[in-house]
Amino acid sequence: MSNSVAPTPGAAVSQDRQWDRLMQMAEIGAIPGEGVNRACLTPLDREARRLLIGWAQAIGLSVSVDPIGNLFLRHEGSDPEAAPVLTGSHMDTQPNGGRFDGIWGVIAGLEAVQAIRESGTPIQRPIEIVAWTNEEGGRFAPGCMGSMAWSGDKPANTWDAVTDPQGVTFKQALLEHQQAEADLPRRTLGPAAGGPKPAFYLEAHIEQGPRLEAEEMDIGVVTGIQGSRWFVVELRGETAHAGTAPLGLRKDAVQDMIRAITALNALMTDPQDVLRFTVGRIEVSPNTSNSVADLVRFTIDFRHPDKDVLLMNGDAVENTVRGAVKHCEVTVTERFHALPVEFDAVVQNAVEDAATAQGLKTLRLPSGAFHDAQFMVPICPTGMLFVPCRKGISHNPAEYSSPEQLAAGARVLAAALAELANR
Amino acid sequence: MSNSVAPTPGAAVSQDRQWDRLMQMAEIGAIPGEGVNRACLTPLDREARRLLIGWAQAIGLSVSVDPIGNLFLRHEGSDPEAAPVLTGSHMDTQPNGGRFDGIWGVIAGLEAVQAIRESGTPIQRPIEIVAWTNEEGGRFAPGCMGSMAWSGDKPANTWDAVTDPQGVTFKQALLEHQQAEADLPRRTLGPAAGGPKPAFYLEAHIEQGPRLEAEEMDIGVVTGIQGSRWFVVELRGETAHAGTAPLGLRKDAVQDMIRAITALNALMTDPQDVLRFTVGRIEVSPNTSNSVADLVRFTIDFRHPDKDVLLMNGDAVENTVRGAVKHCEVTVTERFHALPVEFDAVVQNAVEDAATAQGLKTLRLPSGAFHDAQFMVPICPTGMLFVPCRKGISHNPAEYSSPEQLAAGARVLAAALAELANR
Repeated sequence: MSNSVAPTPGAAVSQDRQWDRLMQMAEIGAIPGEGVNRACLTPLDREARRLLIGWAQAIGLSVSVDPIGNLFLRHEGSDPEAAPVLTGSHMDTQPNGGRFDGIWGVIAGLEAVQAIRESGTPIQRPIEIVAWTNEEGGRFAPGCMGSMAWSGDKPANTWDAVTDPQGVTFKQALLEHQQAEADLPRRTLGPAAGGPKPAFYLEAHIEQGPRLEAEEMDIGVVTGIQGSRWFVVELRGETAHAGTAPLGLRKDAVQDMIRAITALNALMTDPQDVLRFTVGRIEVSPNTSNSVADLVRFTIDFRHPDKDVLLMNGDAVENTVRGAVKHCEVTVTERFHALPVEFDAVVQNAVEDAATAQGLKTLRLPSGAFHDAQFMVPICPTGMLFVPCRKGISHNPAEYSSPEQLAAGARVLAAALAELANR
Repeated sequence: MSNSVAPTPGAAVSQDRQWDRLMQMAEIGAIPGEGVNRACLTPLDREARRLLIGWAQAIGLSVSVDPIGNLFLRHEGSDPEAAPVLTGSHMDTQPNGGRFDGIWGVIAGLEAVQAIRESGTPIQRPIEIVAWTNEEGGRFAPGCMGSMAWSGDKPANTWDAVTDPQGVTFKQALLEHQQAEADLPRRTLGPAAGGPKPAFYLEAHIEQGPRLEAEEMDIGVVTGIQGSRWFVVELRGETAHAGTAPLGLRKDAVQDMIRAITALNALMTDPQDVLRFTVGRIEVSPNTSNSVADLVRFTIDFRHPDKDVLLMNGDAVENTVRGAVKHCEVTVTERFHALPVEFDAVVQNAVEDAATAQGLKTLRLPSGAFHDAQFMVPICPTGMLFVPCRKGISHNPAEYSSPEQLAAGARVLAAALAELANR
């Protein structure tokens, strides 16, 4: 045995071990239909993190958390002073989410590092696996708070007053979370706190779109991420008795919402169907059947790969709403603004070369979803790799990638990380 | 003193006592802006009922509750076997309700009976003050469950499975309520259980519309109630990732709701502005900003005084929704169906004569809101009296009638009840 050639990191990846870990994680917050509902900074989130930490410590990784709850698992290279290669994703899910979005990027990072260790592959730079806080924005909007704070895109206290649907502030939830993890070593916010920047960032994720499956590709080499802008529209009218108030005298917030969304639909019309426009969240007050609504809040999620369209249509949202609404006071607040980004050629090539060397078919494609990787782009050479997912379904219990597809992704990740860690 | 002429019941009404009682009641469930949020079958509801019961027992009325929680306070006449005159209203409020809707009809009944007793007015029939369960339908839809069950319009177990926004069933809430009031004497459901019918039913209420105030009238002699139909529309689509799913491939329940309500607005257009059409409650699932909605439920509250319009437009609701919706499965459920009713001439005249004899100005008008009185019409000669309310505002903390306006209403109620109790 001692005389055999050391296996490659890719060959040391275990398909079964990775799948078993994913299925164990999927039990934490399981919902009917094989889905997962695991919101950030909840007891379920912490249970998942403890499970991950246990696996990491069992193979000798060191654990630390930063002030916004980002969790780091570190494998040392031959040069402890070298800037690390960072990989990872997030562990929170949508309320009606699946078993792979986010969590696979973290588990794949662990699998890749474990394979590098078990294969005895020598690397110079440390590799750190990160689980970013609140990527989804399902409990506290917007998403990507952990990566935005860590990278310095926004100060870490930006979202202190943001509340979840139960009225709990992000600040309160984070404090409770920190108290529950008081035994874990702390670290600083990294570049946001003036700390060293990583050498590279590479994030693995399911595609969340249909292209890799449709074109029978194994690995997506991600070229960039389309831009996203999130808005909250608040319409304040006046409540009244549904049986007595004449329609002509009402200030009905629901009817003004209909006018506003109809006008936004016209603004966002795109015959090429590249533009993404979604009203996914609506709150009505008092929300009883026989009272005219005096308050409606609804969200806008608008995305486009072209910066000019993103800016032009996004900037037109407020005036479009104001022009359509008849009776209500209008407030439009932009909650999230991320321009399109392009990923680094070195990282893209590292992914493509690793895949090709393993006989896997690759496709270069942009990401429709945003990811924590977006906020690493100004910090260091950054990239992502995708694996196919069934019918492109995501943010849904039906989300699925096979053990084989996910193992291929982990093998490519392991090889690419090893390559970048020796650069 | 013993030789003086006995005062009339109207003269024995105390404006201050009635106002003080209303203001004490308004503290139970008080919300900002002088509003009240007191949902049926809650601890607050029971606190209000105990306060009322204390006042009633202090003047010698007997107390009983029926199986659906309707509360009765009885004043005996000279003939205990005679069919009683029934008066009252409800004590629950809208979630963002005012201090007078419903509760004044109960307090006015108590004030009127107390005035009849204190004036020594001889009456033959018993007078019973009733507080009906769940008139508003704010916690459990539809409203008027207590009066519907008591009158036999619907079996008392019809709504057992109806849930409140927290998932509590009506049956559970009622059981808990009965346990909390186990010390109160029980009575049967009345006509629904084959019991005796009342001789008359007369309900006092604030107008909840602008006419009495605008025409400077003291008392509304209510001629009838417009018809009401309530529907729940459920649209089932498919959730998807807001950043990746092309709009052309989505089954977006929010967008289908926009189509449905737009088509319903067209169906319900009425240049005369007599028709009342309200979408007041909307639920969206999963209700996060970056997921396409897979489920929307919204309510329709539709009312019209003309039976033909009520039937024609109401019957067209389902097809209108189906014709407008593009992608979702549609379910339309009718939750409430009450045809327009006309009130009895004898009761209308009793109100009008009592008001005129006291020098008050009256207006005959229909009710835009529905009331428990609606379900008494098939049971016995029935009527209502209105007092003005400021700007017609109701179902709102700004709801207001003055102590003087309410005292005038109680004086007319007392005189009319005494007259009907001797018929």
